[in-house]
Amino acid sequence: MQPFSNSLFADAEASYDEADYVIFGVPYDGTTSFKAGTRAAPNAIRAISYNFEPYMPMYDLELTDIPFIDLGDLYPDCDPEEVTGQVEETVSMILGDGKCPVMLGGEHSITIGAVRAAKPGWYVVCDAHLDFQDEYRGSRYNHDCVTARVEEMGLQGIIIIGGRSGSREEFQRARSHHLFTADQVHEEGIASIITRIKALIGEESLYLSIDADAIDSCLTPGLGTPDPFGMTPRDVRTVIRALAPQAVGFDYVEVLPDDQGQTAAVAAHMIREFIGCRAQSRGM
Amino acid sequence: MQPFSNSLFADAEASYDEADYVIFGVPYDGTTSFKAGTRAAPNAIRAISYNFEPYMPMYDLELTDIPFIDLGDLYPDCDPEEVTGQVEETVSMILGDGKCPVMLGGEHSITIGAVRAAKPGWYVVCDAHLDFQDEYRGSRYNHDCVTARVEEMGLQGIIIIGGRSGSREEFQRARSHHLFTADQVHEEGIASIITRIKALIGEESLYLSIDADAIDSCLTPGLGTPDPFGMTPRDVRTVIRALAPQAVGFDYVEVLPDDQGQTAAVAAHMIREFIGCRAQSRGM
Amino acid sequence: MQPFSNSLFADAEASYDEADYVIFGVPYDGTTSFKAGTRAAPNAIRAISYNFEPYMPMYDLELTDIPFIDLGDLYPDCDPEEVTGQVEETVSMILGDGKCPVMLGGEHSITIGAVRAAKPGWYVVCDAHLDFQDEYRGSRYNHDCVTARVEEMGLQGIIIIGGRSGSREEFQRARSHHLFTADQVHEEGIASIITRIKALIGEESLYLSIDADAIDSCLTPGLGTPDPFGMTPRDVRTVIRALAPQAVGFDYVEVLPDDQGQTAAVAAHMIREFIGCRAQSRGM
Amino acid sequence: MQPFSNSLFADAEASYDEADYVIFGVPYDGTTSFKAGTRAAPNAIRAISYNFEPYMPMYDLELTDIPFIDLGDLYPDCDPEEVTGQVEETVSMILGDGKCPVMLGGEHSITIGAVRAAKPGWYVVCDAHLDFQDEYRGSRYNHDCVTARVEEMGLQGIIIIGGRSGSREEFQRARSHHLFTADQVHEEGIASIITRIKALIGEESLYLSIDADAIDSCLTPGLGTPDPFGMTPRDVRTVIRALAPQAVGFDYVEVLPDDQGQTAAVAAHMIREFIGCRAQSRGM
Amino acid sequence: MQPFSNSLFADAEASYDEADYVIFGVPYDGTTSFKAGTRAAPNAIRAISYNFEPYMPMYDLELTDIPFIDLGDLYPDCDPEEVTGQVEETVSMILGDGKCPVMLGGEHSITIGAVRAAKPGWYVVCDAHLDFQDEYRGSRYNHDCVTARVEEMGLQGIIIIGGRSGSREEFQRARSHHLFTADQVHEEGIASIITRIKALIGEESLYLSIDADAIDSCLTPGLGTPDPFGMTPRDVRTVIRALAPQAVGFDYVEVLPDDQGQTAAVAAHMIREFIGCRAQSRGM
Amino acid sequence: MQPFSNSLFADAEASYDEADYVIFGVPYDGTTSFKAGTRAAPNAIRAISYNFEPYMPMYDLELTDIPFIDLGDLYPDCDPEEVTGQVEETVSMILGDGKCPVMLGGEHSITIGAVRAAKPGWYVVCDAHLDFQDEYRGSRYNHDCVTARVEEMGLQGIIIIGGRSGSREEFQRARSHHLFTADQVHEEGIASIITRIKALIGEESLYLSIDADAIDSCLTPGLGTPDPFGMTPRDVRTVIRALAPQAVGFDYVEVLPDDQGQTAAVAAHMIREFIGCRAQSRGM
Ligand SMILES: [Mn+2]
Ligand SMILES: [Mn+2]
Ligand SMILES: [Mn+2]
Ligand SMILES: [Mn+2]
Ligand SMILES: [Mn+2]
Ligand SMILES: [Mn+2]
Ligand SMILES: [Mn+2]
Ligand SMILES: [Mn+2]
Ligand SMILES: [Mn+2]
Ligand SMILES: [Mn+2]
Ligand SMILES: [Mn+2]
Ligand SMILES: [Mn+2]
Repeated sequence: MQPFSNSLFADAEASYDEADYVIFGVPYDGTTSFKAGTRAAPNAIRAISYNFEPYMPMYDLELTDIPFIDLGDLYPDCDPEEVTGQVEETVSMILGDGKCPVMLGGEHSITIGAVRAAKPGWYVVCDAHLDFQDEYRGSRYNHDCVTARVEEMGLQGIIIIGGRSGSREEFQRARSHHLFTADQVHEEGIASIITRIKALIGEESLYLSIDADAIDSCLTPGLGTPDPFGMTPRDVRTVIRALAPQAVGFDYVEVLPDDQGQTAAVAAHMIREFIGCRAQSRGM
Repeated sequence: MQPFSNSLFADAEASYDEADYVIFGVPYDGTTSFKAGTRAAPNAIRAISYNFEPYMPMYDLELTDIPFIDLGDLYPDCDPEEVTGQVEETVSMILGDGKCPVMLGGEHSITIGAVRAAKPGWYVVCDAHLDFQDEYRGSRYNHDCVTARVEEMGLQGIIIIGGRSGSREEFQRARSHHLFTADQVHEEGIASIITRIKALIGEESLYLSIDADAIDSCLTPGLGTPDPFGMTPRDVRTVIRALAPQAVGFDYVEVLPDDQGQTAAVAAHMIREFIGCRAQSRGM
Repeated sequence: MQPFSNSLFADAEASYDEADYVIFGVPYDGTTSFKAGTRAAPNAIRAISYNFEPYMPMYDLELTDIPFIDLGDLYPDCDPEEVTGQVEETVSMILGDGKCPVMLGGEHSITIGAVRAAKPGWYVVCDAHLDFQDEYRGSRYNHDCVTARVEEMGLQGIIIIGGRSGSREEFQRARSHHLFTADQVHEEGIASIITRIKALIGEESLYLSIDADAIDSCLTPGLGTPDPFGMTPRDVRTVIRALAPQAVGFDYVEVLPDDQGQTAAVAAHMIREFIGCRAQSRGM
Repeated sequence: MQPFSNSLFADAEASYDEADYVIFGVPYDGTTSFKAGTRAAPNAIRAISYNFEPYMPMYDLELTDIPFIDLGDLYPDCDPEEVTGQVEETVSMILGDGKCPVMLGGEHSITIGAVRAAKPGWYVVCDAHLDFQDEYRGSRYNHDCVTARVEEMGLQGIIIIGGRSGSREEFQRARSHHLFTADQVHEEGIASIITRIKALIGEESLYLSIDADAIDSCLTPGLGTPDPFGMTPRDVRTVIRALAPQAVGFDYVEVLPDDQGQTAAVAAHMIREFIGCRAQSRGM
Repeated sequence: MQPFSNSLFADAEASYDEADYVIFGVPYDGTTSFKAGTRAAPNAIRAISYNFEPYMPMYDLELTDIPFIDLGDLYPDCDPEEVTGQVEETVSMILGDGKCPVMLGGEHSITIGAVRAAKPGWYVVCDAHLDFQDEYRGSRYNHDCVTARVEEMGLQGIIIIGGRSGSREEFQRARSHHLFTADQVHEEGIASIITRIKALIGEESLYLSIDADAIDSCLTPGLGTPDPFGMTPRDVRTVIRALAPQAVGFDYVEVLPDDQGQTAAVAAHMIREFIGCRAQSRGM
Repeated sequence: MQPFSNSLFADAEASYDEADYVIFGVPYDGTTSFKAGTRAAPNAIRAISYNFEPYMPMYDLELTDIPFIDLGDLYPDCDPEEVTGQVEETVSMILGDGKCPVMLGGEHSITIGAVRAAKPGWYVVCDAHLDFQDEYRGSRYNHDCVTARVEEMGLQGIIIIGGRSGSREEFQRARSHHLFTADQVHEEGIASIITRIKALIGEESLYLSIDADAIDSCLTPGLGTPDPFGMTPRDVRTVIRALAPQAVGFDYVEVLPDDQGQTAAVAAHMIREFIGCRAQSRGM
């Protein structure tokens, strides 16, 4: 009999029980303020994942040797607070089963639920935006309020990398935590900033959230709130390679696949990097 | 001094006080279930409106001789019930000032607020979808629930033209009102159906809502929930020409301008038809 | 636990054993002569299938009440003759298990393998092209050679509907079978032509192949070899409704989803029509 | 040695001396008022011409049996009056050599030069727009002034088919000639209108200009000034089939190829129809 | 009453009398030689401006605290010399009222009128092209002739940054002024080149024109005459930050918004930078 | 008489006999594994070539002073081995006539035929992919097998620059030749790598093949198998400038022009660089 393909993330061939990593998508974009359509990102990222080889030369690992599953997509409700709850329940289940969640957005607000479930020591986010609004367009769960909601969880620390857009108040609030702007990354080099971040975090656990707009919109234009003067994909890859071993959860959000696929291609690569790097660090 | 343009609906040159017709946009698409982006429709419709001449040969009227204004767009909240309230307040103001509202969606849920404010005798809607869900994705204000919400207002009658998609329950509920499917329109001819509708409504007032997906998605593919086997633009124009004189309010919703502009072009034409036809019937 | 979606055809929820209908995709476009990319059609058709309700008012049937499965996609080889073999093996398996195959192209050459496996009485095809080339660009399995290959199988009859493009020799060859051109369909009406076709076929079995370019490229532009002056979607739907009850197999090929989805939307509708109509005729 | 293709109109294989028909492009769009880019049409039309078979079943003719050439494109100046002169010189040369010009726009203003050179008895144009402005945006050679310029040439008659957009003055001016609106074509049928036109023209010579926006923008959206509620491609084909035998020149203008190619496909078909029909009428 | 938006540049809330900066658009592209459509840029830049926060952390300024207005768009004539006159009149008015003009192209030829009105000490332009043609396609006001026309004004100096395309004669002519090629910028670094430019200009006044194609077309592909191997957005931002304080006028031209918005996003950022930097230098 | 353009590579004005360089296209994409459509690249590259000036300041040469011709496109067969033969025959003819072939893909498999004909000392390829599969999807002439087929020719050496994707076995095989990964290029700098390559090759002849996906897909997204984390266009230009003087043949393959033209623009530039640099080195 001929073999057949499905459309989930390439090489995600483990059963749920076998899996160390659990990918799932949240095609939700109900609160986005500029361009609509991040709901299409999970499937766009999956589609481009078939363009890449299972072998990852950086880690000398076959992706097929790492047990991971792609559950498909949640059916999100309309209301962002409800969606946060759906995500929290899902991530709690995954973590409770001793697995690492890898979430594909959809908009950034979904991260709130994941961090709530993960209860990490630190929250590290790459993002053009500070996301420190207390409320926006009538909702405290708007994608502009993510860091504000995380702040309320009382974690040990919050680190924002690539930030360059926000109100004066948001910048003040971000600077009371740890803000490394995109211009700083450009001028100091990501390696130096990683050193500073590692000194802050030490051996503690963290949740790593990548808002795709951290990357310069001239390099990856497929974004809901595109911003130029940003980080490079290599900068973000360096962040992932540095922090994946300590991460209890990971997400990649805010891709809006209206370009030729380059933004989703970067996303798929980053997800592979996260899984490959973390798996290798744990002795695969 | 050189003259300058803005980007509001072409020929909308009256002040609010002078205006008989008040256009406004509601760039809201928070509950849409398939493709995202109807928020972009109001400006796309305005842009294409500059492609047409002020003169309307059907009515031998210059659009510039009819006093109308385009207020621009509401800033919609995230929550659909809140948006309904924003629309209701706006339409109430317009009607209270003795003017006729012409609303550009955005998604169909905004119609709920407009009908609430307008309190018409009849609700007439062209739509591929029956929109008779009581709740969808956790919200009673989802764009799939519009007719269900209108039904609760206890108007004299509800007429759906072009319907072809819904659950068995929605079809039953729609048939308890007045449903003219797209296949019926194709087979009987719109003129015959208009005769039957006129017999139903008589001289009573009505609110006319055009969900752009009433039209066949092969003819106007720029839609959030595109459906083939639909009405033609001429069918819908016939509905507008027949019912505009009795209408207390009008909206054109669910355009998603990802095509070459043909769907927005039809929308802009229909808005001109509504204004031109109604103005002529009142002796302009 | 939250439910999750996959990306196969909407409502295809049966197991293989339960299924009466077996959908599978063949993302192959190796011999196409004009625009490249029909390989993307199976997933585009699946994606748009989620835009439609399970309920089909024409048949008063819920799609979820008809047991069918979507196997996903074959992994096609490079060589068209090899791909034909892959298809033949798959369709033989499905028919051998007493089920009805529903194949999503990809290019038209895949039909050769399906007809070989199905051994129907008649071959009925809607196509702008006569596909009667003996060889094209060095291959006898080019998508321009489909009907020529089918002719060699010695079926009882071949019927081409919507044909309007071919060489003089192809027209002569097609007219030695049964050719109903698109202009004939436009002028005589599809109902009259269906009557003539039914008289030809009687109660015998048939294989029904829909090359999407049978439909006018102004209505469905997402095609590899688009041709204007064609049939309407309603014409093709009428063909399906008339012939599905007698069909032993079905395919929908040559969609190239570079438009706003209207061509894939029509395709998804037609697949639902085929399954719904045939299921109803068998007493569902 | 392997054969090689170029990118001129398919099957245009005659030398200039042999040719009965001379195709040339004018990639000029300097005065267009709405969407920019009709300059790209000549090459888009040529590209799609390779999608069609040389054989034309309507005329039982191989296009390769009709001697015609495609010269390529003029290098247009910036100023529309200059471009008109370039076209006039070219068309004069072609007519002086006893050949029939077939011009691909670019914008409609180029027709002025062609009609000046051709000095036909009648000017017949399919166009959504009346093009009867005396001056527009500071130029008397704007694409909105074509018919006004032709009127000054004192031909025997001017016939506009498909007109539906213009100022009150333009409608008055058009009605002093012969105007058949798109709604008239829809209601009366093109066959009846052709009969009336033939009665007007008799055996006299004519120049036939097709502004692509005569066709409904829902069917062919690739247009600089798209207009819905227009003619169908079959309507325009009927005009060409009726009038090509008497035509001393032909052009197809105002295609703006930003769609999936359907508008250029119709254009290429129409050019084939013009050449095939006229050639057959002259005994090919 | 609900507030409403318009579509002018975000945060442009001053009246003309209050305004220090006056934005206006010139949607003119009549002489462009390659891709058509820079006329669409002013509205595309305005649309993306809503994606950015009013707060500019670089200057610790709220854009809303700087009084500026967006007048909308001029209605350009067809003829480029006429358009130059329209621009000259507008810029003269703005400068005569003690305000700073910020012009959005459209094509580069409009700069001629602005420089004529501004009579600066120096003309500084970022451009891939030298624009030193005396005449092109029959016009001395073609967008390839901008620097040639400026040269005739007898300013103190002309500086071209990012130049990499032109004829041998244009390179010779540019080198008789001050040319810093894109390869020089890449190799020497923009900071070093700014030092040299500052030494040339001293405290004198200048007009700053940014032709968007100065930037590498791989980073910002939305251009009428795209050229790879160019400057980075950061390079151009450095130029603006260095020279805005001395500028009497500014324009950003030649954006052709056919990409995902990244080119317009850079443009909107640069306009904010110009206004913010110049305002801060004057003590806001 | 007015001059006319064709659509071949800009400034390719020599006859075959005069030409030193012979451009030809191979619009073949029959074995591509991810996105379809590299067949469209030759004409897209030609179209953008008109955007550039004949003058190349780097070489102080007018392209029009170098005798070269563009033959147009081969008519490729369906089968990749056959196409390889068509290419081999063509390149043999060109080399036999003492000219240098410049081939535009189409997919990479066509390089096999060119290298067979050219019999160079070394094969140097820029490519994201190692292309060392022995067979793929049932064919030994798949575009993933190029280097494997070249290896069998027994040349003096194989050099891969920019490689970053392949199986473990392909990496092992590539490292047994000379592999410089994209990360190496990024970290060491292309100049240093060129020095090492020059030391390997010395004065021997080479064939230079550029697979466009060597370049980062964020910079040039118009690719069939796009890969981020790649080389920059300047890196590849440096390779061409270093190696063109010794090259006996050149190709640029795997462009898939679905972007705004930036990928084809880079391709056209590189072809100019190859011809200009090689011509200058030979004393033009
Ligand atoms: Mn965020
Ligand atoms: Mn963000
Ligand atoms: Mn609706
Ligand atoms: Mn609807
Ligand atoms: Mn076919
Ligand atoms: Mn076909
Ligand atoms: Mn016209
Ligand atoms: Mn027109
Ligand atoms: Mn310029
Ligand atoms: Mn320029
Ligand atoms: Mn390759
Ligand atoms: Mn490659």
